[in-house]
Amino acid sequence: MNNKFKIGVLLFPQFELLDVFGPLEMYGTRPEVFEICMVSQNIGSVVSKQGPKVVAEYDFNSSGYDIIMIPGGMGTRKEVENQKILEWIQIQSKDAKYITSICTGSALMAKSGLLNGVHATTNKRAFNWVVSQGSKVLWKKEARWVEDGRYFTSSGISAGMDMTLGLISKILGTQEALAIANEVEYEWHSDPSWDPFAKLYG
Amino acid sequence: MNNKFKIGVLLFPQFELLDVFGPLEMYGTRPEVFEICMVSQNIGSVVSKQGPKVVAEYDFNSSGYDIIMIPGGMGTRKEVENQKILEWIQIQSKDAKYITSICTGSALMAKSGLLNGVHATTNKRAFNWVVSQGSKVLWKKEARWVEDGRYFTSSGISAGMDMTLGLISKILGTQEALAIANEVEYEWHSDPSWDPFAKLYG
Repeated sequence: MNNKFKIGVLLFPQFELLDVFGPLEMYGTRPEVFEICMVSQNIGSVVSKQGPKVVAEYDFNSSGYDIIMIPGGMGTRKEVENQKILEWIQIQSKDAKYITSICTGSALMAKSGLLNGVHATTNKRAFNWVVSQGSKVLWKKEARWVEDGRYFTSSGISAGMDMTLGLISKILGTQEALAIANEVEYEWHSDPSWDPFAKLYG
Repeated sequence: MNNKFKIGVLLFPQFELLDVFGPLEMYGTRPEVFEICMVSQNIGSVVSKQGPKVVAEYDFNSSGYDIIMIPGGMGTRKEVENQKILEWIQIQSKDAKYITSICTGSALMAKSGLLNGVHATTNKRAFNWVVSQGSKVLWKKEARWVEDGRYFTSSGISAGMDMTLGLISKILGTQEALAIANEVEYEWHSDPSWDPFAKLYG
């Protein structure tokens, strides 16, 4: 036990690289606050959609995460049928302070039943498929990210960085989130309703 | 041999996550054009500054890269003294079409002598240290990225994404670079002179 926010980052084959590493760059600037744990069904290397492999150091037997982070990527099409992953999301979310998804990661959250009655968003190009994974979710078509209680869901890929800074702003204050954005030379879209991409794919 | 652009991505301990995976997200949208090769001094997992480990599948005995990609991160402070890395950069760059760096990765390029007489930029918060690694480099203090012949150097961390789209624009055309930015829902700063962060740390 320590006082850090322990982040459980779910990895599965064909996850999207920037869905994972955009947010982790932001959390990673404050190692005194956030502890990153790379989790997968099996310990070992996990291949991304883009090819590079990342090491999962924890499997589904570990627990105690304060923040759950679920990325998207083509792999979600298969993983929505993976009961082990859906159970991991259900069980680990019980005691988590925040449950977050990037891009089509929301399909896994939706399929696990967690988002029933919750406002949420997702990638706009995959919108219809994601929506089909959870008919009781209050899907929002135009949003960079959506915050509803302890649930933070973001739009496609790059939106994960903006959402993560939004969550950090909630935990550490807006000044600190802005300081992080400046340190990584990132222009933060701090307005969750900013979404020029929804119109493109609408 | 194939007709793809083979990208040699240099990994070393304490590399910066987004320096690597921001650009790879962009290249990774076009696997029919770009082939990603994760390279390090030794094959195996390499730990990032933020903690997550990434697998290098190639060591310094492999060659034939069309694009060399050198990330930054705290690890560069140590690696500027690593003759094996400096030699790898020198040798691999000979036949490469483009040599690129993100953030303090330019310190490694500068130290290898490649940037002598070349216009280049780097992270603004680490500017003085990077400049000290190459007194004959034509350093530019305010720039999102700098293109000089086959050399593309970018500013801090997130700037790698903008520079990579700039390089893709050169290879595949601006329409295609814009299409990629839209696919990953990224607001591309397509003007290399855009740099609000230089003023912050100036």
